[in-house]
Parts: sequence; C-alpha cells; structure tokens
Amino acid sequence: MAEDGISASVITIGDELMIGQVIDTNSAWIAQQLNDYGIRLKRRVAVGDDREDILYALEEEQKHSQIILITGGLGPTEDDITKTVLNEYFGGRMVMNEEVLGNIRHIFEHILKRPLIDRNINQALVPDNCTVLFNHHGTAPGMWFEKKDRIIVSLPGVPNELKGLMTDTVLPKLAERFNTGFILHKTLITFGYGESFIAEHIQDFTNALPTHIKLAFLPNYGLLRLRLTGYGKEKDLIETELQSRFGELRERVKKWLVVDEDITMPALLGRILKEKKLSLSTAESCTGGYIAHLFTRNAGASDFFKGSVVSYSNKLKENMLGVRNETLKNYGAVSEETVREMAAGAIRVMDTDYVIATSGIMGPGGGRPDKPVGTVWIAVGSRSEIRTRLLQLRWNRITNIDHTANYALNQLRELIGEKQS
Amino acid sequence: MAEDGISASVITIGDELMIGQVIDTNSAWIAQQLNDYGIRLKRRVAVGDDREDILYALEEEQKHSQIILITGGLGPTEDDITKTVLNEYFGGRMVMNEEVLGNIRHIFEHILKRPLIDRNINQALVPDNCTVLFNHHGTAPGMWFEKKDRIIVSLPGVPNELKGLMTDTVLPKLAERFNTGFILHKTLITFGYGESFIAEHIQDFTNALPTHIKLAFLPNYGLLRLRLTGYGKEKDLIETELQSRFGELRERVKKWLVVDEDITMPALLGRILKEKKLSLSTAESCTGGYIAHLFTRNAGASDFFKGSVVSYSNKLKENMLGVRNETLKNYGAVSEETVREMAAGAIRVMDTDYVIATSGIMGPGGGRPDKPVGTVWIAVGSRSEIRTRLLQLRWNRITNIDHTANYALNQLRELIGEKQS
Repeated sequence: MAEDGISASVITIGDELMIGQVIDTNSAWIAQQLNDYGIRLKRRVAVGDDREDILYALEEEQKHSQIILITGGLGPTEDDITKTVLNEYFGGRMVMNEEVLGNIRHIFEHILKRPLIDRNINQALVPDNCTVLFNHHGTAPGMWFEKKDRIIVSLPGVPNELKGLMTDTVLPKLAERFNTGFILHKTLITFGYGESFIAEHIQDFTNALPTHIKLAFLPNYGLLRLRLTGYGKEKDLIETELQSRFGELRERVKKWLVVDEDITMPALLGRILKEKKLSLSTAESCTGGYIAHLFTRNAGASDFFKGSVVSYSNKLKENMLGVRNETLKNYGAVSEETVREMAAGAIRVMDTDYVIATSGIMGPGGGRPDKPVGTVWIAVGSRSEIRTRLLQLRWNRITNIDHTANYALNQLRELIGEKQS
Repeated sequence: MAEDGISASVITIGDELMIGQVIDTNSAWIAQQLNDYGIRLKRRVAVGDDREDILYALEEEQKHSQIILITGGLGPTEDDITKTVLNEYFGGRMVMNEEVLGNIRHIFEHILKRPLIDRNINQALVPDNCTVLFNHHGTAPGMWFEKKDRIIVSLPGVPNELKGLMTDTVLPKLAERFNTGFILHKTLITFGYGESFIAEHIQDFTNALPTHIKLAFLPNYGLLRLRLTGYGKEKDLIETELQSRFGELRERVKKWLVVDEDITMPALLGRILKEKKLSLSTAESCTGGYIAHLFTRNAGASDFFKGSVVSYSNKLKENMLGVRNETLKNYGAVSEETVREMAAGAIRVMDTDYVIATSGIMGPGGGRPDKPVGTVWIAVGSRSEIRTRLLQLRWNRITNIDHTANYALNQLRELIGEKQS
C-alpha cells in the first residue's frame, strides 16, 4: 500500500494465538471497518500474554501508526494481563468504575443468573487516566488512552463484544477526531479461470493504472476476485476515477464475469432466486449439508430455500430421493446417473423450482483407480431440465467440499441466467 | 509466555489482510506445527504488499526471533512482490531454476491443461543465494535464506502449498538444525459453565502452579477449553510433571468435564458413535444443515452418519418428517412439540439409533414477544426416548447457529453416556 493518510496498527494479545489454538477472525473485521472509515491498516501484530512482549509491541507500533487498537487479554482469569500492563505503561492508578460495576452486576443477576465473584468485580477496575468505553455486550470495558498524538484503544477479544464496542464507540470517535483521506474499493468476481491467465489477459490494463489505483487478485475455490483500490484526499475524484477504471476492467473480463460487486456466491444466488421468486432445494451426498448451510447462514434464506436431503448413505438415496437400486448397483453412488436421479428426486419430494445435487469422493479415503479421490458429480436443474458436470478435484477434504459447493452454485447461477433472462 | 529456547516470528504478506478481505488461517496452523517441534512462536506480524513495510518487518523480526517464516506474496501477478524484495534484501541475483520450471510445465500441461505464459515461467526465477524448497502442490517454490544466525524462509500463502512445504521440508530442516527445548500441552474441555466460574473454583490449583507451567482458559460457544502448558529442556520431566498437574485439574472439574483431550465436539461424538457402532441422523430447521456439515467435514463420517433432513419450510416438516399439521398450527414451528415430532420422524424415516433435531429463531428477524430471537428448541434421542431442551441465546445469527450445534451435540453425548455405559 502507499500514500499518506491516517494509519493504524492492530495488536492482538493471547497465548492461544501463539500456539494456534484459535483462528483470529477479529483482525480481518477490524481491517474492513477501518478501511470503510478511510483509515489505512498498516500492520497487524500478535503476541502472547507476556508483559514484555506486550510492552514492546505497544512501543513499537507507535512508530508506525497514529492509532493502535489492542484486542484480547481482558478476561477475568490469571492469563489475562493486558489491563495491568497498560496501567503500568501509562502510569495510572486502578479505580473502581461504578457504571461498569453496575453492568457486571446486571449481567450476572439477570442474564447469566450466577453469583458474582471477586474476579468479576475486578473487571470494573480501570486505570484512572483512560476514557472508559462502556461494553453493552459483556463484562470487560474498553479503554481509550492518549499519549502525545497517539491513540491507544484496548478492547475485549470476544468477537461480539469487540464488534459492539468498535461500532458503537471507537469508530465514531476516530471518525470525529481525524479528517482522514479516503480508500475506496471496487471488486468484481470471475469464475473458472486462474489468476495468471486473467492477469495475462489484462496485462496492459494493469500497466496503465496510475500509482494511486491498485489491482489485486484474490483467488478462492474456483472464484477469482479482482479488486481495484483507489487512494486520495478527494472522495468524489477517486470515486469517478475508480468507476471509470472499473468499467474498463469489467469489459475486459466479461467472458468470465460472475458479478461486479463483492458478494459471496450463496448471497448472490440467494438474491437472484428471491428477486425472481424461485425456490431451491438441495440433495447432498459428498457436501453433507454444507451447501444448505451456506444458504441458511444468511438471514432471509427461508424466502427461497425450502430444504435439503443429506443422503449420506445409499439407502437414504433410495428411500428419500427415489434413486433406483439398479442405478446405484450399475453405476455406483458417484456417477452421473445417480446424481441426476438425486436431483430429480429432490425436486419431486421438496417441490422446488430449482435443485442442486452432489455426489463425490472427498477423501482422504474412498478413492479407486477408476474413481480417484476428488471425483465429483454435480447436477443442477429445474423441473424441465437437469444438467450434470464432472469435477476432478485435487485438494484436501475440506477444500474439495468448498470447491464442489462453489462449482455447483455457479453452475446453477448460469442455468438460471439462461432460462430466466 | 516465558523461558528461553528457540523462538520464531511469522510474517504474513498481502494487501488483502490489511483490508480484511481474507481471514488468515495459515498462522494458526504454523503456530501449532512450531509448537509440536518445540519452537516457540513469539510474534505474528502481517503487512501489505509494500516494499518498505516488508523490509521493515524483515529487519525488525530478526531482533525477536532466530527463525522468520514469511508467507504470501509469491503469486504470478503484479501485486506479489515478496520474492523481489527478498532478493534485494539479501543482495542476490535472479536465476532460472530448471527443476522448478519443469514442475511448472508439468502442472500446466497435465493438471491445469492451459498454455504456459511468461508470468508463470517467471515463478521459476529464484535468488541465487537461497536454498530452493521444491513445492509439490503448486508453482511457487519456497526459499530458505540464512543471515548470520538467523533463518528466513519464504513460503507461498496458498494453504495446501504452505502446509505441504512446511511438513515435507521446512519443519524437518528446522528440527535437524536446532536442539530445541520442549513445549507440551494438555487440554481438557468442560461444558455449560463460564470461564470466571471455573477459574474461581480452581483458584488455589492455579496459584500453586510452578512458573514453567501455565493454565489458559479458552471459551468457545458454550465449551470451555482448559489448557496446561509446560516448558523445559527435558521432555520426560515436563511430561511427568504436566501429567500429574493435569490429573489434579481433571479431578477438580470432573463435574463439568466433557473430555480430557483437545478434540472438537463433532469429532468426539463421531468417535463415540463409531466405537459403539451406533448410527445418527439429524432433522434440522434453524441450524439449516450445519450440524450435518460438522459431522461430514470429518473423514470417516459415513461410518455412523446416515443423513439429514433439512426441513427449512413447514411444509417439508410435515411431508418429510411427518410433523402433524395441527402441531405446527397449535404450537408453531419453534416449539417443544414440533422439535419432538421432528426427531421422532427423522428416526423413523432414516432408521438410525440416535437423532438430533433443532428448531429456533436465529435472527436478526423473525422474533416475536413470546418467542424472541434466540429461542431454540433442541431434541436428542433414540427409538425409545427423546429429550428436549429450550435455549435462550443472545448472539448474532452465525453465533446462535454455532451455540445451538454445540448444545445439541453435548446433550446427545450426555444421553449416550447414560444409556450406553
């Protein structure tokens, strides 16, 4: 990244990050939010629950960034030392905050319905030289410190508490304080062709971009996101310029274009189905309910998604979807014939306009010379037409499941596009 | 964390991390691997695809750690500059590596079946002062540099390529090089009680731990992991000591104990079902296929998992699971009566020994005064007995789905424990 503007560092604290027991999803979310506010995230650092490592990071990141957001280490247990270390660093004195204490009492009495103990009460102790940020979603308050022209904010690591505090308090306060520059993004998505192929195809476009507009290639399970980012002081100017370059880019990749916005495949397909008032069901063998989950994790899925038969055993393929026993015997569960009958059965049983069906060998076991691991049949269709496709995937089990879902969803998107446009 | 021993830093490179477009899962995996080899991860740093930020991090992390692992920025497109920056930093000259080129040719001709273009060929260019690490899973090779007593390794960010290179080459080379100390972990899992309650209950145990043994509390959707970590030079000694403390801890929390190892709930339940040769099906409304996915994402699920009916619409609750129309009319879809009939229907239709059923309001919409968002009924049972439970959750949609799944799985685990022991 380049150019000036306000920059931030995120420091994530926790031994669990240093031994890999949890995956840090907070940092990505924080990054998105800062970007939306025109604040550039410059560095993300993670350290363990260790006094010296925390102090070092705190000092070091102030060399890089005006804003330091610290997450984690504010829990009620011994391993959580962030508050103590910050109090030491800023030379404060711990005082009891009555408002925070009231909140903690309320949570224990009315929500958790458990007795309040000393270590919870101690969560209401805060350094006297910080601004306390009230946490509506949990017991640990946020803390806002200032040191010369640096702002240092400490937040709990529990995702919904962090998000609440950032959205309600921290981001508005930062926006008020800084007259920031702007970072704008425009993203489009292509499917089926690799990063290097597309990059080659648009080489001259990329070379002609000015220095304050950058193009990034973000591949993800068969999908490729192309993201244009513009930096600058005048929002209207960047917007116009970015819009024009984006139009050019869209034109250049239109053959492989899925959509010209940053959206997930299930959200996109869900929107199309809702708009056209179409219903969907799935019949899943190798994806084992994952495609149903991809739809139902989004709010409003019930408007188009009616249900799924996860027929993991062959018996259920017969009993619930009406796949014929002789089809399974003659061609096997992983075959074009079977997946076609699964799709037809699902439409019949669940009475939907469209269907997605999958059957394959996700690995690591179960492969055979004629049907190696990664052999997948997908079917998508409607009452009048079912289309099948063979995939030969070459990744691990989880990644194979992800790829299968993306291919199946994209194939249905294409079919609906043809039929309904 | 504390004590001496070999320490490492991870530097993750990519603009996408700075705007939060992807979640970094590599770092957690690397942390686990290093720990298993007795190498302590001290810091994780992420920076954008920016020359100066990369150079700074490279220089800085050598102050903290003997081993620097760099991931990302090795792709074939313009935004990938890691290799060029490393070549500049180490003062090398780019040379064509014939073995790598052969691998790239092979991948394009036989796997991708696409024409090879210049930017792919350029991936075989490597600095002449590094040891090239052959990548069996992709086109970008790893690079191993040494500078004084520091080891700097650059690896691709694509997860399966990174994992392949680490496992095949980097970790064995590091193990050979260093005579490291040992870090051992032992983890147990409790359910249903919060971090501060358990912490209070075992306060004296925690206080009595020696400085080279630490206890961490890791809450996750109703589950609480308690992890003991021991450091030291003599493996047998730490092992014995850790085992003894762990036995004590297990005894202290046995009332809430789920299992005395680090395993996910679906993997644990799957193992129990397999051992006892029991089969399982699910009938999912509000979890929308997620519970089926939690089982089927693990290899070998077909040994016990037969299938699922995701009955997202009421019509399918009737047609596929035999929930009575009057039950839905009188009590609603989110009710004890409905979830009980869903469970009974699933057992009947899918003919399994055990069943899990869910029906609830996950939010953000759909709540009513008598049934607010977060109202969930779960049922678990067998042919002879079905047990129900009401949850009142208070998180966002995704987190509510996660909690529901964990509660349902734990309840089935308890039931099987009673019936089959």
